[in-house]
Amino acid sequence: MAHVYNRVALIGLGLIASSMFWAMKRGGLAGEVTGYARSAETRETAREIGLCDVVYDDITQAVEGADLIVLCVPVGVMGQVMEQIAGSLAQGATVTDVGSVKRAVIDQVTPHLPEGVHFVAGHPLAGTEHSGPKAGFAELFDNRWSLLVPSEGTDPKATAKLRALWEGMGANVEEMDADHHDLVLAVTSHAPHLIAYTMVGVADDLRRVTDSEVIKYSAAGFRDFTRIAASDPTMWRDVFLSNKDATLEILGRFTEELFALQRAIRQGDGDHLFEYFTRTRAIRRGIIEAGQDTDAPNFGRGAGSKT
Amino acid sequence: MAHVYNRVALIGLGLIASSMFWAMKRGGLAGEVTGYARSAETRETAREIGLCDVVYDDITQAVEGADLIVLCVPVGVMGQVMEQIAGSLAQGATVTDVGSVKRAVIDQVTPHLPEGVHFVAGHPLAGTEHSGPKAGFAELFDNRWSLLVPSEGTDPKATAKLRALWEGMGANVEEMDADHHDLVLAVTSHAPHLIAYTMVGVADDLRRVTDSEVIKYSAAGFRDFTRIAASDPTMWRDVFLSNKDATLEILGRFTEELFALQRAIRQGDGDHLFEYFTRTRAIRRGIIEAGQDTDAPNFGRGAGSKT
Repeated sequence: MAHVYNRVALIGLGLIASSMFWAMKRGGLAGEVTGYARSAETRETAREIGLCDVVYDDITQAVEGADLIVLCVPVGVMGQVMEQIAGSLAQGATVTDVGSVKRAVIDQVTPHLPEGVHFVAGHPLAGTEHSGPKAGFAELFDNRWSLLVPSEGTDPKATAKLRALWEGMGANVEEMDADHHDLVLAVTSHAPHLIAYTMVGVADDLRRVTDSEVIKYSAAGFRDFTRIAASDPTMWRDVFLSNKDATLEILGRFTEELFALQRAIRQGDGDHLFEYFTRTRAIRRGIIEAGQDTDAPNFGRGAGSKT
Repeated sequence: MAHVYNRVALIGLGLIASSMFWAMKRGGLAGEVTGYARSAETRETAREIGLCDVVYDDITQAVEGADLIVLCVPVGVMGQVMEQIAGSLAQGATVTDVGSVKRAVIDQVTPHLPEGVHFVAGHPLAGTEHSGPKAGFAELFDNRWSLLVPSEGTDPKATAKLRALWEGMGANVEEMDADHHDLVLAVTSHAPHLIAYTMVGVADDLRRVTDSEVIKYSAAGFRDFTRIAASDPTMWRDVFLSNKDATLEILGRFTEELFALQRAIRQGDGDHLFEYFTRTRAIRRGIIEAGQDTDAPNFGRGAGSKT
């Protein structure tokens, strides 16, 4: 495939940036890929594993001459990073990001955007519970969705080019409005993560059941929660703080439903429970038919071996 | 391996009974395995797929002459089934069950137990989101835990023999008191299932986000919840109704923690969130080290293909 971009700069070298690098190499999508990370240790690791063609110690050098700059940093520092690089961006370049919240990122980044540079916010709905430069792999985006949120007045050509990059990395692309994005993600991602963190925290905190019991007997359901509750704490702190309203709205709805089910249990209302539990099966079926999960029992995981 | 039992009767032919059958055959653990299911359709399916050496249309015939009878029916009907078979049990036989709640089952079953018949309650902590006779497979119990809850006065030899059967089927066995079992399972299984059902119900019910959006974008976290929320509704209705107190206790603790995290989000208390999210990672690590889950990203599931 012909290169989509001549020079791509990845700012922040964690799971997503690293997967983008390997996916771009797999597809021959970029002439050169430069990288920068704030931590010297991360830059060192990146150099060791061949992540990026060049890793710079100076963020402005990393973005110089790039026609695409991808901000892969926590949502809370997107504005600061944009401010740092603003003076070094080439005319006609496109800046994008991979943050899980879009309204807050657009509000932070836009004020620092120089004339003649495009900003197309983005969000690949892909990830794993592992973090850091070594966690990335080329297949992460295959058949996953990547959402683009072009601001008003964005050049459609800039958006189309970014779409081509994501499609080349294996993703399906959809465009969406920032506020709707933040609500959809509150439902499909942010509320589930907070709930999983909460349940794991409760289990860890009980006095009458030991952690070792929780761990031993986790296969009865609990372990499904622990995967997403092992995700990067900095990233998730920033997500909740910057998508406050939508997350709290969904959690409010969740609490309401949970109370109704608790009451049904207390009152012995089996019909209410049965009907509720029957309805939720259809959603699972839809997810499998849409190719967004495996139908293999227990996600297809084999029995682990004891270490 | 020499047979552990000469004749095993499986009452109720769903996922667990079916997996037990295949696991007993794999290990040569039983001379003969008989089966019974209340629904004629299930009995027909069992005969077609070779599940059980003989499938009987009459429950009393299925248990006659058996030295082990395994009740694999929903928790809510254990007592009724025990009442039906009580007059046909051989002297010296052992009755066990595989229900997810133990106090309520023991209370239901014990009054119908004839003199000279042992009851050792049991609970294999293994399962998948699929139900029915076709869902079973021999490896289901490999390296999973199976809990035995012998009542006071149970012959230790009866318990030891049942332990040998479970170990032969690949499980690790632990003995536990009924009330502690019900509390441990409320944490590791019952509360997580109710929470997953609730979250999936909320997502299905929102007016401003369509089901098709929830399904498309589920890879961002939500899909992990949908697996256990696709479990058998009858089984789960009965679990919540018969482990009411422990489940409501854990849900109360859960709600308390969730409210504290919601307040932290509302007040912008990032440190509280960060500390909470950091603590939960250790539990995940413990589960992987104990061989109760895979460390492969996203449970090792590959990208699905669209249908």
